[in-house]
Amino acid sequence: MKLYSYFRSSAAYRVRIALNLKNLPYRTEPVHLLQDGGRQRGAEYTALNPQKLVPALTTPDGVLTQSLAIIEYLDETHPEPPLLPADAAGRARVRAIAQLTACDIHPLNNLRVLQYLEQHFAAGGEAKNHWYRHWINEGFTALETLLHSPQTGRFCHGDNPTLADCCLIPQVYNARRFGIDPAAYPAIARIAAECTPLPAFAAAAPENQPDAE
Amino acid sequence: MKLYSYFRSSAAYRVRIALNLKNLPYRTEPVHLLQDGGRQRGAEYTALNPQKLVPALTTPDGVLTQSLAIIEYLDETHPEPPLLPADAAGRARVRAIAQLTACDIHPLNNLRVLQYLEQHFAAGGEAKNHWYRHWINEGFTALETLLHSPQTGRFCHGDNPTLADCCLIPQVYNARRFGIDPAAYPAIARIAAECTPLPAFAAAAPENQPDAE
Repeated sequence: MKLYSYFRSSAAYRVRIALNLKNLPYRTEPVHLLQDGGRQRGAEYTALNPQKLVPALTTPDGVLTQSLAIIEYLDETHPEPPLLPADAAGRARVRAIAQLTACDIHPLNNLRVLQYLEQHFAAGGEAKNHWYRHWINEGFTALETLLHSPQTGRFCHGDNPTLADCCLIPQVYNARRFGIDPAAYPAIARIAAECTPLPAFAAAAPENQPDAE
Repeated sequence: MKLYSYFRSSAAYRVRIALNLKNLPYRTEPVHLLQDGGRQRGAEYTALNPQKLVPALTTPDGVLTQSLAIIEYLDETHPEPPLLPADAAGRARVRAIAQLTACDIHPLNNLRVLQYLEQHFAAGGEAKNHWYRHWINEGFTALETLLHSPQTGRFCHGDNPTLADCCLIPQVYNARRFGIDPAAYPAIARIAAECTPLPAFAAAAPENQPDAE
């Protein structure tokens, strides 16, 4: 499989973690989001993913897009180790935690959105940072409450990494990068400390990608 | 089951369609997003959903949040009629189409985001409308390309409604409301015309909710 990726893309980072947790070999095809006006907007990549967003994953079933859809596909086609619990209620909890990040934090802070704020609202660095941190703090405040639950274990749900952790860790990376101290969110900080040193998470980290700058 | 809903919330609208397609009875508990500074921000609702967003669904397994997680739960606990195809590749396609809307269009146009633009960027009506339409047009342009596929049938994927259609129809409703003519997107417009008259979709429409204004 070939993963179209950018080292700092948190959606690509999620899929890298999942591929590593599943022990699935893949080749990284870097797509530089800032060079040439964004290579994700070029004809070659747009033909693969009309959304002009990374990641995309080539599979025996064709090119897949959308990080959560890709991870569910990997979980269905390579069930071990599972990234979703076996019970419907647990699966709903894990998906809701994943979507809290993947729907309600990350898309708001995506590069194309920051570029819009710059172009249409003349947002400068400080205004963009405020925006960025605002949506992380909103989401993390809710997530911290949700994680204060008997269903939380060593990881977001129980004692094995799930789809929820695949989404959380890249978001924690972004939070740190924009000056948010995860210690303000003790459950999130604790889970991040559990995940970060694990080989599957470490190998997926932005600084360990072939296109890292 | 009890659905915490707002007639115009497209995330709630998605779940209403899914409940109706499954023929599952439910009671609507309206949460007015604009009264009293937003009832979703009040103590009562926040205790149910710390994210302060609708919908939330009470189920025998507890309160569920996040519309896509809820719909997957309904599909797992009440498999007929299925809202996802049987094959992993088809499921990945349906989820990717759903997420194109649920991650990359809708959260950007959410009420809380429009309120932020107003408060922090002094965005007036025209600026907010431009923003709103921009993200719909970006997403619909990509989706239109994805729908030009042999896998598209009467609906987004094949000849039965899926999770993808549950997400598309509320987004088309929003597009119309903000002056986008779906005819600019022929595949989207055709699928919307297929879905809209079906009883499950019609009963879920904002104008047919108990809290419609």
